[in-house]
Amino acid sequence: MTATAAKNRIAMLSPVAWRTPPRQYGAWETVASNITEGLVARGWDVTLFATGDSQTTARLHSVVDKGYEEDASIDPKVAEYLHISEAFERAAEFDLIHSHYDFMALTYSRLVTTPMVTTIHGFSSSQIIPVYQKYRDSNFVSISESDRSPGLNYLGTVYNGIDLSLYPLQPTAGDALVFLGRIHPDKGVHLAIEVAQKSGLPLLIAGIIQDKTYFREQVEPHIGRDQIQYLGAVDNAGKNELFARAKALLHLNTIPERFGLVLAEANAAGVPVVAMDLGSCREVIKDGRTGFLVNNVDEAVACLHRLSKIDRTECRRNVEQRFSVDTMVEGYERVYRKIFQQQADQNS
Amino acid sequence: MTATAAKNRIAMLSPVAWRTPPRQYGAWETVASNITEGLVARGWDVTLFATGDSQTTARLHSVVDKGYEEDASIDPKVAEYLHISEAFERAAEFDLIHSHYDFMALTYSRLVTTPMVTTIHGFSSSQIIPVYQKYRDSNFVSISESDRSPGLNYLGTVYNGIDLSLYPLQPTAGDALVFLGRIHPDKGVHLAIEVAQKSGLPLLIAGIIQDKTYFREQVEPHIGRDQIQYLGAVDNAGKNELFARAKALLHLNTIPERFGLVLAEANAAGVPVVAMDLGSCREVIKDGRTGFLVNNVDEAVACLHRLSKIDRTECRRNVEQRFSVDTMVEGYERVYRKIFQQQADQNS
Repeated sequence: MTATAAKNRIAMLSPVAWRTPPRQYGAWETVASNITEGLVARGWDVTLFATGDSQTTARLHSVVDKGYEEDASIDPKVAEYLHISEAFERAAEFDLIHSHYDFMALTYSRLVTTPMVTTIHGFSSSQIIPVYQKYRDSNFVSISESDRSPGLNYLGTVYNGIDLSLYPLQPTAGDALVFLGRIHPDKGVHLAIEVAQKSGLPLLIAGIIQDKTYFREQVEPHIGRDQIQYLGAVDNAGKNELFARAKALLHLNTIPERFGLVLAEANAAGVPVVAMDLGSCREVIKDGRTGFLVNNVDEAVACLHRLSKIDRTECRRNVEQRFSVDTMVEGYERVYRKIFQQQADQNS
Repeated sequence: MTATAAKNRIAMLSPVAWRTPPRQYGAWETVASNITEGLVARGWDVTLFATGDSQTTARLHSVVDKGYEEDASIDPKVAEYLHISEAFERAAEFDLIHSHYDFMALTYSRLVTTPMVTTIHGFSSSQIIPVYQKYRDSNFVSISESDRSPGLNYLGTVYNGIDLSLYPLQPTAGDALVFLGRIHPDKGVHLAIEVAQKSGLPLLIAGIIQDKTYFREQVEPHIGRDQIQYLGAVDNAGKNELFARAKALLHLNTIPERFGLVLAEANAAGVPVVAMDLGSCREVIKDGRTGFLVNNVDEAVACLHRLSKIDRTECRRNVEQRFSVDTMVEGYERVYRKIFQQQADQNS
């Protein structure tokens, strides 16, 4: 085996909360899937560690049949320990482990000689930071410039990429405002409702209910009034139906966005995005070109009359250039090459 | 370093739910502490991996300051991953890792060459069995003959040992029945209450409330009536006060007991035990000699008039012989020697 070929063996460690790719919600699994499929298309030898029902053109290796969020009989703790350790027990079969598994996988990384790179999809709480600090000399990729923790060995930022074929351009604008995402205060569903009420425009809400109390108290009372509808969780076809009806996507996040896949998805379909200027939103949305960055509800309402000035084809073109699977995979290839080069330098 | 000395370096991996030894409740940490202190007394070089506030004559290594059950600011998942992996990252410094850390530690065991033995303190649910099955060729110790899962490589049963100096013989019987343990349906507090009510004897209940609903519905309504008292959780001094007031310990477990440390503690103090004949109880209690094994409440009530026939010094002597720290440590020394011998055989 030549040195080059030997550098091709990638273990892709996806989460096992959901299938890879997920049926509906599951952002980390979506990204892991997109990277995997993109790498395979570009000739890499990839083994995907994911749930047994996952779908991939890579080699699939699984010890957990289904996502623990999709099968109540699975103990998440058992599933995670079995799944993560399995990849490390097979580390010698790979030249690189690419982990999407949060802080847990780091705790196995020093027990193998195969290098690892972790895409940090988000810091779920401040309590996990000490783990990242302990393993700060490992290799990390951030998904936006804004979502970084100081002191970690970042090799770069690689923006998430989406499969543009899943989100065809909707040539003309619809009549409704659209909220698409987890029903959770972080995502500002209540702010989207305020914007709809103040602007008098209909609002279509879709997404899994992650915070039941929030839904019951701040979302549900408005449903069925003021042309506000809740459509439940939607699959890909459902998303495209929403984009076809969308005048704009409202994404009024209340905490810094880590990346915001849905912003890119909406833009891919030609839908302008009105996003809170917090976290990564200004990295994804070009203010005044592919949507508007706002700081509060009133600014969001005020920008709605300028939506017609957004060029829908420019929205899509921006995604094609910056947030396509190809662009993302090229980003990861650069990261992988850095790691392989460092290894070669150390061994020479 | 001679081969013999090299065999002396033991990493003792205690849980980090509580301090080692625990202040009050914490059976696994208690046993890990007793083994550690016993091994050190017998000349072994032991490093105890436990919370930072732990107390030991061994070398203490900690990455988690306090037990996650004692400090709400600690994320149990973070603490466990950091703590367990730390021991394995230092595996090369040891000749043996002795794990008290349930199934999680097994998932690191194949990534190091240092052998590991796991004391299985109990199977918390059927969902963890697949992990034990995957690692069934590792080394296991059961804490009773009854608490075994088929197919695992058991090197032996080592009964838990207690520090008898902590439980001085109470020479004369008290007047009350005593329940000591977690307030949980598994431990049959409600059955102890029934026995007290049917026999007309006072009942002293002590222990942490693990199942709040159970406490509220099946225990609390009886407190303050029929001479039934709840004393909360008790420390060692509190236990001895209870033993001084005890006519008998009632331990009417509703599921198979795994070992039953409290049975040995009561017997050490000279207190006879009335125990349900389920699981390991018949391995700890000699029926008619150190207490009585029963199958239901009526049998428990019926045996109370025979308590005076139990020789309290025989109760203590039985614990001295079979459930002392020395006896336990000798048991583990035999297990360790088996492992070292197997290693030597493989290397020769």
